Amino acid sequence: MLKVDLNSDLGESFGNYKIGLDEEVIKYVTSVNIACGWHAGDPEVMEKTVGIAKENGVAVGAHPGFLDLMGFGRRNLSINPSEMKAYIKYQLGALMAFAKAKEERIQHVKPHGAMYNMAAKDSALAIAIAEAIYEVDKDIILLGLANSELIKAGEHVGLKVANEVFADRAYNSDGTLVARSKEGAVIHDVDIALSRIIRMVREGKVTAITGEDVDINAQSICVHGDNPEAVAFVKKIKTKLQEEGIEVTAISNFIK
Amino acid sequence: MLKVDLNSDLGESFGNYKIGLDEEVIKYVTSVNIACGWHAGDPEVMEKTVGIAKENGVAVGAHPGFLDLMGFGRRNLSINPSEMKAYIKYQLGALMAFAKAKEERIQHVKPHGAMYNMAAKDSALAIAIAEAIYEVDKDIILLGLANSELIKAGEHVGLKVANEVFADRAYNSDGTLVARSKEGAVIHDVDIALSRIIRMVREGKVTAITGEDVDINAQSICVHGDNPEAVAFVKKIKTKLQEEGIEVTAISNFIK
Amino acid sequence: MLKVDLNSDLGESFGNYKIGLDEEVIKYVTSVNIACGWHAGDPEVMEKTVGIAKENGVAVGAHPGFLDLMGFGRRNLSINPSEMKAYIKYQLGALMAFAKAKEERIQHVKPHGAMYNMAAKDSALAIAIAEAIYEVDKDIILLGLANSELIKAGEHVGLKVANEVFADRAYNSDGTLVARSKEGAVIHDVDIALSRIIRMVREGKVTAITGEDVDINAQSICVHGDNPEAVAFVKKIKTKLQEEGIEVTAISNFIK
Amino acid sequence: MLKVDLNSDLGESFGNYKIGLDEEVIKYVTSVNIACGWHAGDPEVMEKTVGIAKENGVAVGAHPGFLDLMGFGRRNLSINPSEMKAYIKYQLGALMAFAKAKEERIQHVKPHGAMYNMAAKDSALAIAIAEAIYEVDKDIILLGLANSELIKAGEHVGLKVANEVFADRAYNSDGTLVARSKEGAVIHDVDIALSRIIRMVREGKVTAITGEDVDINAQSICVHGDNPEAVAFVKKIKTKLQEEGIEVTAISNFIK
Repeated sequence: MLKVDLNSDLGESFGNYKIGLDEEVIKYVTSVNIACGWHAGDPEVMEKTVGIAKENGVAVGAHPGFLDLMGFGRRNLSINPSEMKAYIKYQLGALMAFAKAKEERIQHVKPHGAMYNMAAKDSALAIAIAEAIYEVDKDIILLGLANSELIKAGEHVGLKVANEVFADRAYNSDGTLVARSKEGAVIHDVDIALSRIIRMVREGKVTAITGEDVDINAQSICVHGDNPEAVAFVKKIKTKLQEEGIEVTAISNFIK
Repeated sequence: MLKVDLNSDLGESFGNYKIGLDEEVIKYVTSVNIACGWHAGDPEVMEKTVGIAKENGVAVGAHPGFLDLMGFGRRNLSINPSEMKAYIKYQLGALMAFAKAKEERIQHVKPHGAMYNMAAKDSALAIAIAEAIYEVDKDIILLGLANSELIKAGEHVGLKVANEVFADRAYNSDGTLVARSKEGAVIHDVDIALSRIIRMVREGKVTAITGEDVDINAQSICVHGDNPEAVAFVKKIKTKLQEEGIEVTAISNFIK
Repeated sequence: MLKVDLNSDLGESFGNYKIGLDEEVIKYVTSVNIACGWHAGDPEVMEKTVGIAKENGVAVGAHPGFLDLMGFGRRNLSINPSEMKAYIKYQLGALMAFAKAKEERIQHVKPHGAMYNMAAKDSALAIAIAEAIYEVDKDIILLGLANSELIKAGEHVGLKVANEVFADRAYNSDGTLVARSKEGAVIHDVDIALSRIIRMVREGKVTAITGEDVDINAQSICVHGDNPEAVAFVKKIKTKLQEEGIEVTAISNFIK
Repeated sequence: MLKVDLNSDLGESFGNYKIGLDEEVIKYVTSVNIACGWHAGDPEVMEKTVGIAKENGVAVGAHPGFLDLMGFGRRNLSINPSEMKAYIKYQLGALMAFAKAKEERIQHVKPHGAMYNMAAKDSALAIAIAEAIYEVDKDIILLGLANSELIKAGEHVGLKVANEVFADRAYNSDGTLVARSKEGAVIHDVDIALSRIIRMVREGKVTAITGEDVDINAQSICVHGDNPEAVAFVKKIKTKLQEEGIEVTAISNFIK
């Protein structure tokens, strides 16, 4: 039976600031990426978010980012691999403490925002991330953009990896995402998005913005819980996948 | 054979800012308290400091503090027990990742500065610290001010505890430290300081500033590595203890 | 004609995090307290908030707080007067740059949260705040809790001061606010709240929680724009004040 | 008479962390760039540094940088022009408050580290910096790398500008600095460095690393006070300039 994971970023609130419909979207996903206090999240939010993940039977992942709360971790910061390695360990370790206290384990690490994008292209930073995870716990899965340097780095270092795809984003012919600044980068038609997902999971292919088919390994689909519309879309994706006979389950259940 | 631990705060540098003669003082101590990035330290410093602890065969402890780099964690912050618990887990976990990557374990937790002082008196905050540690790893020793609420909290929660004493500080008749703002709070005479230490370890007693003897359990002596004089004093303490037939060894070697 | 000011905290959003119905509540108030980036707010939010204040013809005030975004500036931090003085200057200056760029002036300074509460009771901290303002611009009004040490400090230093009252809070017989933790501290009945405000402005008196009348100088009324109900209450207060023949206008129009 | 300014970064200490021989180097320079609390410096350090600048009769400049204390503002951060503009205003305003309190004025703004380097090449960011300064106080001088986009932006916006040169750095044939990563980027021979400075000031020319002469407008020379050797070099530069009949004076004394 075909299997795929649905993942969503959670625990992005901070102090008095609330963001995200965490308790809604968690009903539909199978893995969550929990912010680790650098680009979003704070220790109490992390603790609470691990708790709701446990209650909902959803796998817990660390979502480390740049120490840039003002920019929500979305702005590139020119750090070197040594810094990256230490920053990943720090944030992963912090989340592990909350998981350990609730007898949960960390299933995966997925870098956030600018860190994710930089690691998708820069192999030295990607290797640093993979090594950091491997040194802390080599059983943790590295979740990254399908076909990216981050996936290659994970494999190179000896980690299990999971390829992530996006339902609402266009792809280039080399398997990379079309930059958001370009025409057609975001797919707004829900039915088209659903069809693309099904094909990615079933056939391992997606039609590039330039028309040709591209190989893509859809192991985890990134979804959002920012607003009621986003949550409704997640629900639709899950229903559609199940209708198509595709099992929606956490990556640790099928990634070897 | 009598045993005592010598502990020192390490890893307090941050980014471009260097503090402490870490590589000097570590030659003489048996346990180190490593700053966890909130009041001092950064991920690269933490990684490096765990490394030099390992190289020197010195036991590693977490030194969590308030998120107040500008005040070096020395200013009281009115947090509640829930916040305290989450802050301890976060910082402890972060250090654990660096320890795990080097196959080191965390021997103890010693709160820093204002957090240490507040927890010495406020039982609710003390319990929060003890519970946080217990939930993350119940084999970790809680190192706190001798006779304080923090020690009581550790015992209450079921942790192993270690009583810390100060060579250069005067004590009140109830076993608490004389506030630094008071006359005679700091003992400047090295020979007197040494004699007091020996008596604390050997007899479990110290003469209070008011003249009477106070019971004190000297399991770990706090020393400093801020400057060459401080390091020289640490060396003297160690030599004196050894001359007196007292074994200087990490708390995990004798705390049950 | 009797005059009173309505003030509200604005500009508390930060980066990706949005808080407060700033554009709604600003229609009804006459002065705004703009967060200065330490407990809330960021430079872009400050710039935008000064802009909407100008567009609405509302007087601009600085709302400095502790460098504790995680606690929203609501947690006491044991700083000394020298630190306080420097922190006030820093934040006030930062806001002044945005005001200057839009040819607006800073009407007042009102410390935020824990800083406000500490300065209401601690005369040394209160003096530090007043001196900081005076040294930067002696024409700025200090807005503080009626009858507090902060008001006394402002007068002592030579600043113009404005006494702030709360519509929805009970008062002790000495004119201080009943702590939120106590029964009856918050007045939930809107009509009672409105009557109290009118009496405070008209007669300079409020009934304490213990029954007796207390003298109070109601020059500025603190209101909130956190949610639609709060904004509706502000609108009611303003309407009621105007119906009673009380002019609602910025403090700089009547404080000498 | 030929004139040139000597400028140095000051006030880079933070809380418990001390950096720089500020009180030594200030004896020899004519302008100082004071860190504004984002990449270095804190409010108390800023206040103190404005004070020692005043005592030494040295002109005060703002040295804004990225909010990256961990990286000392030396790491590129991909901000947009709107963010840059707000960040400059914020930091400039903060320093202005300390200057105003001591009846000093801000002579100039010189961006720090990565902000300086990015603005030297990116005209949109450079324009944002220039506009921020212009909107806050159009009499402030913009100090930037000679021949850079930042200088052009300042002129374009209508600010007075000052071209900065480096005594110990090699130049490319287009007038830009040779990247530090390249062979020969730093000139270690003091006599050669001194000769180059004199020629830059006297003839407006410097020999590029590729051998040809490049036009350069040396209005301010950047010097350092990090260690005793650096301070000794500053002293030598000043003596040499004076021996050559070149007046060493703050840029505001000769920039129109």
